[in-house]
Amino acid sequence: MTYCVGLLLDAGMVLLSDTRTNAGLDNISVYKKMFTFEAPGDRVIVILTAGSLSVTQTTIARLHDAIDNPNAEAESILKAPTMLRVAEIVGDTLSTVARDVAVKLGAMSQNASATMIVAGQRKGGGMRMFLVYPEGNFIESTTDTAFLQIGEHKYGKPILDRVVSMDTTLADAQKAVLLSMDSTMRSNLSVGMPLDLCVIRKGQMRAEARRIGADDPVFHKMSFAWSTALRDAFADIEI
Amino acid sequence: MTYCVGLLLDAGMVLLSDTRTNAGLDNISVYKKMFTFEAPGDRVIVILTAGSLSVTQTTIARLHDAIDNPNAEAESILKAPTMLRVAEIVGDTLSTVARDVAVKLGAMSQNASATMIVAGQRKGGGMRMFLVYPEGNFIESTTDTAFLQIGEHKYGKPILDRVVSMDTTLADAQKAVLLSMDSTMRSNLSVGMPLDLCVIRKGQMRAEARRIGADDPVFHKMSFAWSTALRDAFADIEI
Repeated sequence: MTYCVGLLLDAGMVLLSDTRTNAGLDNISVYKKMFTFEAPGDRVIVILTAGSLSVTQTTIARLHDAIDNPNAEAESILKAPTMLRVAEIVGDTLSTVARDVAVKLGAMSQNASATMIVAGQRKGGGMRMFLVYPEGNFIESTTDTAFLQIGEHKYGKPILDRVVSMDTTLADAQKAVLLSMDSTMRSNLSVGMPLDLCVIRKGQMRAEARRIGADDPVFHKMSFAWSTALRDAFADIEI
Repeated sequence: MTYCVGLLLDAGMVLLSDTRTNAGLDNISVYKKMFTFEAPGDRVIVILTAGSLSVTQTTIARLHDAIDNPNAEAESILKAPTMLRVAEIVGDTLSTVARDVAVKLGAMSQNASATMIVAGQRKGGGMRMFLVYPEGNFIESTTDTAFLQIGEHKYGKPILDRVVSMDTTLADAQKAVLLSMDSTMRSNLSVGMPLDLCVIRKGQMRAEARRIGADDPVFHKMSFAWSTALRDAFADIEI
């Protein structure tokens, strides 16, 4: 399983993904699920992935291929004229890969699909964030829905519903996504550390990414403080 | 959809269910999902249901039938020698009904199933709580897992994970299940008011049930206080 979340706020975008993949509970690995495509100062695109690893890896590889080979059939997301076109390219690539894999798996009645969050900004355009479905169609984050989630989204949604809105600061936004991830990891073993966190400040066209390891003291302190605060708040509620 | 939760604690049992059923988002109704079978002072059994309404209603009807008609083929749960036997009777009835319905639905490639929580105590026995699966098999709550959930369980699980243990008081337990339900109703429209809350004090063999309406002032106050407390706690966390 996977949990990825993206926030599109007035001040910028905040993205967080876990790194745990599993082929059965007895076969757990660490794979990056956050991919950054950057021409600093000109454009930045971050893609978060959930679903079949064979589908997501091949999709990302083909997107890279189109960037590196000007003669490739596919269009480069670093040259696309708008973020909407970027989402379309990602969607088309994803659905093509999923179809290719489906043909191979069809004989075994198995299924492989994936969903992605595509967030970014190009010079002269606004920040935009999309959720791309397995079939290649997509929806976009608006001022009414400041966040998008893929994968195991339920455990971590209540905290986001309560504290996130368009005017949330980037500092609070990082706190919110980390606490949302913390709740998810407590309840679903198939979501796990380390985490990849990325902040894109509005108009900077640059991704500030950092990895949060399993022994990160700041994350542990925050997780513990949140547990304590929740228990204290619970104790204070009158009924 | 549905959310039902049961807590088995040192001091007693606390059970909560919503009442919303839907056949599509455009067809929403209120149906009780909590059923009490009582011989006060001798035994009390409470059953919570989730899943296909045609399956759960028929199952409950057959359980009642077996109680009312001493000559019925099925065994009465009010005469079963142990709570384990009660769980077996419920499981057998549920799987039989599900099979009967499946035959009718088979032609249309549809599926109908249900899960149930069965909680109770009989004179001379301990309190016991079971989660009965659609196939009729079941698991039991132990000291390591003080709560069982059926239906839309994910949104309301983090709060239970953090605050519920065997030595939780019955007052705190009611607060915990109501806050768990509150989180679920905020995130899933198919879970809704009114709520049915039931407390069974250890050794009393009696169900104290009450309905919490959509306009219940105590519930609203608690829900508002919890939202405020969460936002305050969030603001206080340092990162």
